[in-house]
Amino acid sequence: MFQVRTDLALETREKFEEDNVEVKGVRLEEEQATPEIHISSVIIETENGAKVMGRPKGNYVTLEASNMTEEDEGYHREISVQLSKVLKRLLPQKQDFTTLVVGLGNRAVTPDSLGPRVVDNLCITRHIIKEFGKYVIGDNCQKSVSSIVPGVMAQTGIESMEIVRGIIKETAPDVVIAVDALAARSTRRLNRTIQITDTGITPGSGVGNHRHALNCESMGIPVIAIGIPTVVDAATIVVDTMNHLLDAMSQVEQVYRIGRSYEKLDMVEKYDLIHELLIPQLNTLYVTPKDVDEAVKRLSFTVSEGINIALQKEC
Amino acid sequence: MFQVRTDLALETREKFEEDNVEVKGVRLEEEQATPEIHISSVIIETENGAKVMGRPKGNYVTLEASNMTEEDEGYHREISVQLSKVLKRLLPQKQDFTTLVVGLGNRAVTPDSLGPRVVDNLCITRHIIKEFGKYVIGDNCQKSVSSIVPGVMAQTGIESMEIVRGIIKETAPDVVIAVDALAARSTRRLNRTIQITDTGITPGSGVGNHRHALNCESMGIPVIAIGIPTVVDAATIVVDTMNHLLDAMSQVEQVYRIGRSYEKLDMVEKYDLIHELLIPQLNTLYVTPKDVDEAVKRLSFTVSEGINIALQKEC
Amino acid sequence: MFQVRTDLALETREKFEEDNVEVKGVRLEEEQATPEIHISSVIIETENGAKVMGRPKGNYVTLEASNMTEEDEGYHREISVQLSKVLKRLLPQKQDFTTLVVGLGNRAVTPDSLGPRVVDNLCITRHIIKEFGKYVIGDNCQKSVSSIVPGVMAQTGIESMEIVRGIIKETAPDVVIAVDALAARSTRRLNRTIQITDTGITPGSGVGNHRHALNCESMGIPVIAIGIPTVVDAATIVVDTMNHLLDAMSQVEQVYRIGRSYEKLDMVEKYDLIHELLIPQLNTLYVTPKDVDEAVKRLSFTVSEGINIALQKEC
Amino acid sequence: MFQVRTDLALETREKFEEDNVEVKGVRLEEEQATPEIHISSVIIETENGAKVMGRPKGNYVTLEASNMTEEDEGYHREISVQLSKVLKRLLPQKQDFTTLVVGLGNRAVTPDSLGPRVVDNLCITRHIIKEFGKYVIGDNCQKSVSSIVPGVMAQTGIESMEIVRGIIKETAPDVVIAVDALAARSTRRLNRTIQITDTGITPGSGVGNHRHALNCESMGIPVIAIGIPTVVDAATIVVDTMNHLLDAMSQVEQVYRIGRSYEKLDMVEKYDLIHELLIPQLNTLYVTPKDVDEAVKRLSFTVSEGINIALQKEC
Repeated sequence: MFQVRTDLALETREKFEEDNVEVKGVRLEEEQATPEIHISSVIIETENGAKVMGRPKGNYVTLEASNMTEEDEGYHREISVQLSKVLKRLLPQKQDFTTLVVGLGNRAVTPDSLGPRVVDNLCITRHIIKEFGKYVIGDNCQKSVSSIVPGVMAQTGIESMEIVRGIIKETAPDVVIAVDALAARSTRRLNRTIQITDTGITPGSGVGNHRHALNCESMGIPVIAIGIPTVVDAATIVVDTMNHLLDAMSQVEQVYRIGRSYEKLDMVEKYDLIHELLIPQLNTLYVTPKDVDEAVKRLSFTVSEGINIALQKEC
Repeated sequence: MFQVRTDLALETREKFEEDNVEVKGVRLEEEQATPEIHISSVIIETENGAKVMGRPKGNYVTLEASNMTEEDEGYHREISVQLSKVLKRLLPQKQDFTTLVVGLGNRAVTPDSLGPRVVDNLCITRHIIKEFGKYVIGDNCQKSVSSIVPGVMAQTGIESMEIVRGIIKETAPDVVIAVDALAARSTRRLNRTIQITDTGITPGSGVGNHRHALNCESMGIPVIAIGIPTVVDAATIVVDTMNHLLDAMSQVEQVYRIGRSYEKLDMVEKYDLIHELLIPQLNTLYVTPKDVDEAVKRLSFTVSEGINIALQKEC
Repeated sequence: MFQVRTDLALETREKFEEDNVEVKGVRLEEEQATPEIHISSVIIETENGAKVMGRPKGNYVTLEASNMTEEDEGYHREISVQLSKVLKRLLPQKQDFTTLVVGLGNRAVTPDSLGPRVVDNLCITRHIIKEFGKYVIGDNCQKSVSSIVPGVMAQTGIESMEIVRGIIKETAPDVVIAVDALAARSTRRLNRTIQITDTGITPGSGVGNHRHALNCESMGIPVIAIGIPTVVDAATIVVDTMNHLLDAMSQVEQVYRIGRSYEKLDMVEKYDLIHELLIPQLNTLYVTPKDVDEAVKRLSFTVSEGINIALQKEC
Repeated sequence: MFQVRTDLALETREKFEEDNVEVKGVRLEEEQATPEIHISSVIIETENGAKVMGRPKGNYVTLEASNMTEEDEGYHREISVQLSKVLKRLLPQKQDFTTLVVGLGNRAVTPDSLGPRVVDNLCITRHIIKEFGKYVIGDNCQKSVSSIVPGVMAQTGIESMEIVRGIIKETAPDVVIAVDALAARSTRRLNRTIQITDTGITPGSGVGNHRHALNCESMGIPVIAIGIPTVVDAATIVVDTMNHLLDAMSQVEQVYRIGRSYEKLDMVEKYDLIHELLIPQLNTLYVTPKDVDEAVKRLSFTVSEGINIALQKEC
C-alpha cells in the first residue's frame, strides 16, 4: 500500500488503527500528564512488531501539547519539565553518567535547524568538571555534559555518524542524546509534538534524511533521540487532500461514480499510479509552516531546558 | 475558476494559453539572449489586460536559465550581465540618478531571505559620494546607491512599506529597486527564474505576502521589483498532482468514467469543493526545495552583481 | 588636559572628583537598590554643567551590578526589574503612549551588536494593536511598541538618524528608546553597567561612533537612550597603564627622578606628546573582553526584558 | 626580558634583529612574489633555534600584502594564487592525497571567526568521491577534501583537538590543514599577513588560545596551519606606546633624565614591574580593528580560494 513517510511511530500506529489492522507486538500506553500535555508511549516489543511498524524494537514516547507553539512567557517550562521526566526514564538508571548531546541538521535551513539550536542553549559542563572536579559547579549538581553539532555532509564531506563515532571514541561518554527535526504525516502535528525514543536515529529519518544509523548498535553506547516534526513531505499534502477530495466527492450524488471507481482500482495499480506521478516532482521538496522560524526558536529552548533539567543530579 | 497563486506574470499568461483563452491588451516578446538564457517580456498594455491578468499595467520581464542553480565558479556572472541589461532598460534614462535598494523578506527564514541577502552584497556608495563627492570612487563611475532591509512586521510592528516611505521622504532617491522572494506555480521554475518589473510590489505577493503596495503610486517615485520564486504554495502541489492523476486516470480504460465525471462537475461547485478543502489546512504552509539554502545564497550573489553592474555609470 | 573618551557621564564626573575639581550645576544622587545593584544619577542642571561635562543637560542614571555578567538561571531578571523602574521615571507620565525602540549598532560585530540583539527579544505590539485594537492582547496590558534596526552606514549608505527620522515621520510614535553599545574608560565597567539617559544619543558616542544626534531636538519627540559599555578605546588602556607604571615608578627609589620629571612636564606639552603618539595608531582599534559574545547575549536579554516590563500598562 | 606575545614567527625573529641578537639555527629567505606580495620564510633548523624562538622546528612562511584588506572586485585572487603555491610546497608531494580542513575558532566572535568562515567557502568533495568515484567531478580534478568546525570548548565541553583526533581516526585523511585567527605584535600586520607553517597549531596560540597542540605528533599525520592575525594583545599596545613615548621623551631635552633612568632600570625589575601592572587587567582583553567584520569576511574568501586552488589536481 502507498505509505507516505512519517518519522513519528505514533502516526504509523494510528494508520494501522484507521485501517483496522491489528499489530501484534506493539503496545500503546496513554497518559494525560497535565490538562494541556498528553503523553503516548508506543512500545514495540517483538521482531514482528518491528517489521510491521518499519522501526526497531524499543520505546517511542510522544509528548503532545496543542499550545506548544503559542507564545507564553518564553518557552513553556511545563513542557520542558515533562520532557525531562520522560528522558530520566530512558537515561541510565545510575546516579552519575556522562552525556554527549548531538545536534543534527543544518543550522542554515530553518526547519532543519532544531538540533543545532538546542545545543546552543545547553548547560555544558564536561570541560569544567574535567578541569576543576565536580564540586565546583555547586548547587546545581550537574552531570558531565558535552555536545557536538556535526554539520551537514555537503559542508563537511563527512557523514554526521562518522563524526559522532569519532568523538565518542575520543571522549567516551556513557550515553548519547541526539536531537533532530523530523517529518510528520499530519500537518496538525507540526511543531506541536516531541518524540523521545531509546532506539536512536534510523536511516532515512529527519528533515535532512540521514543515511546511516546513530544507535546503540552503530555507536556502542545507548542513543536516545529527541525529535520534533517541522516539515511534512510534499507527497503527504497531495495524498491527504486528494483523499479528502475523493471522500467529499463520493458524498455528492452527482459524482457518485467517481468515488466508487477510485475505490475499485486495484491497490497495486493505485500505488504505481500515485508513485509514478508523485516521486519525480516531489522528492526534492518539503512543506513547512510559514511561522517556522519563531516556532523552531521557541521549541529549541523548550527542548534544551528539558535536557538541562534531566541532567541535573538529584541531591 | 480556481486559480492557484503565482507571482510570475509569465505563468499567469501561460495558464490562459493552456486554456486557449486569448487575452487582449497583453503582448508577449521572446528573446534567446544566450544559448542558456531565455528572456520573455509580458507587456500589459491596457486596463482590460490588467484586469484579466490580475496585475497592474507595465512590463514583466522574465529571465530563465535552466542552469541557474547549478554551481559554477561562484555565481553565474553571465546571468548578472543579462539582468543588468534588463534593469538598464527599466531604470531612469538619464546619466545620473540615485537609487534606494530595498531588501524585502525575512532574513531568518531561508526561502524568504533573498532580499536581505542581495542587499548584503551590494556596492553601497551614497554615504561616500555625500561626503567626498562623486569623483573619489574613481574608475567605477558608480551612481549613488543606498539600501534598507526593513525586516518583518512581527519583528518591527511596522509595515515594510511604511519604513520604505519614511526613508524615501528623508533621503529622496530617484528610483527604488525592491528585491523579494516570490511564489511560483510550477516547481520547475523554483530558483531558475528572475522576474523584473517596473510595476513594483503588489499586495499579496512575495513569500511573506506583503499587505501593501510598494509602487510608483504609493511611493511617488518609480519602483522596479526583482523577484525569484523560491517557494510554491502548498495548494499548487495538490492541484497539480491531482490534475496529473486525473489526466492519467482518464487514459486508463478501467477508470474511464472518473475523469469524465470530474470534468462534468460544475465549475463553481468544483471551485467551492477544492477551496473548502484546501484553504483551512494549506494556507499557512509552503513548499520549498531541499537545497534552498545553497540556491538562495548563490542567487543572491547573481542578483547583487546584476544590480551593481547596472548602477555603474558608463564613462 | 588629555581626556580619554567615555560614554558614561558617571565616569566623566568621577574624573573631576579624582582631580578635586568641583563642577557646579551637576548633582549626584546615589541609591543601593538591592544588595547587588547600585544606582547613581548624574543630573546636569545648568548650561555651565553641560559645558564642563561635555554633555547635554539632563538625567544620566547608571545602574551597576558587579554580578551582571555572571551566569544565573538566564539573564538576571532582578536587573531588568530595576531597569524598568528607571525607564518608567523617564518615560512619558501618562497611561498610554506609543514607543519606537531603535537598535543601533552592527549586528555582525559582536561588541557593537547590543542594540540589534535587544530588539530581537522585544515584545512588539504595534501591528497587532493597529489591526485588532488594544483589547486583544489581554492580561499583559501592553502599550504599542514598534522597533527598527537601522543597520550601519557602510551597509545602507544612510545615516541611522536619517532612517529613524523617516520612520518617526511615517509612524508618529510618542517616544523613542534607543539602545546602543558604549565605550567606557574603565575596563572594570565593561559589561557591568547600564546607563539610561533622557538626553538621547550624542554625536561621537557608541562603539560605532554616531555622527549625528538622535535626541529630542533632532527627532521632535523625547529620546531615551539605554547603553552598556562593551569596549574601551585602545588609548584608554595605554594611558591607564602608563599612569599606573609611572605611579609605581615614582615610588621606587631607584627611578625617583622619572616620576617627578614627568609631573613637571607642562600639561600642554604632555597632551601634545601623547596625542601625537597615540592617535595615528590607535584610533582605528578598540579593546574588548574575550568573553564579549556570551556577555552581550546575556545582557541583551536583560535589557529587552527591562523594556518589556516598563512598557506594560498597569491595570 | 619582557616579551609580548605574537603568533607570527616572523615577528619573533624581527624582535631579535632589533635587539641585535643573532639566532643560530634559524634561516630567513625573502622573495618578492609580485609587486604587491612579499613572501618571507623563517626556517627553524635546529633544536637550539626552536628553543630560542619558542616554537617547534619547521617552516614558517609569511605572505604579506599591504593591500590585502582593501576592496577589489571581491577577494584578491592574486593572493589566493600565491597562497596556493606556498601550500603546494608544504602539502604531500604525491599526485593524490586526502585532506581534512579544520576551521578553528568561534564563529560568533568576529575576530575569532576566520577558521569557521574559511570552511564555509571550501570546495568539499570527499562525500562525492566516496559515492561516485573520482571521475564524476570532471575537469577540476579535485582531490578528496573534507572539513570540520569543532566549535569552542565553552559550547561543546570538548577540546577542539579531541574532536579533530576523533574524526581523523574515523576518516583517515592523509593531511590536516588547520585555519585559525592569530594574535600579532604589530597592529600594522593586522589583517595584512598570512602565516603558513608545517608545524601545526601550538598550545597558547590563536585568538582563542588553544590549550593543546594540533600537530603531527598529536595527530599522527602532517598538520599545516594557516593563520591571519586579527587581534593584538592589549599588553602589546601598552608596551609599544610606552616605548614610543619614552623614545620621544628621551629626545626632548627637558625630559632628558627620564629616558636615561628608565634604560638604567635593571631588566628583571623592569619585567617584574610591567608584568605585575599589566597582567591582572589586560589578560582578558584584546585589541582589534574597527573594520574587522569586513576584513575577516574578505580574508576568509581569499584563504578558501587559496586552499581550493592548492587541492585541485594537475591534469
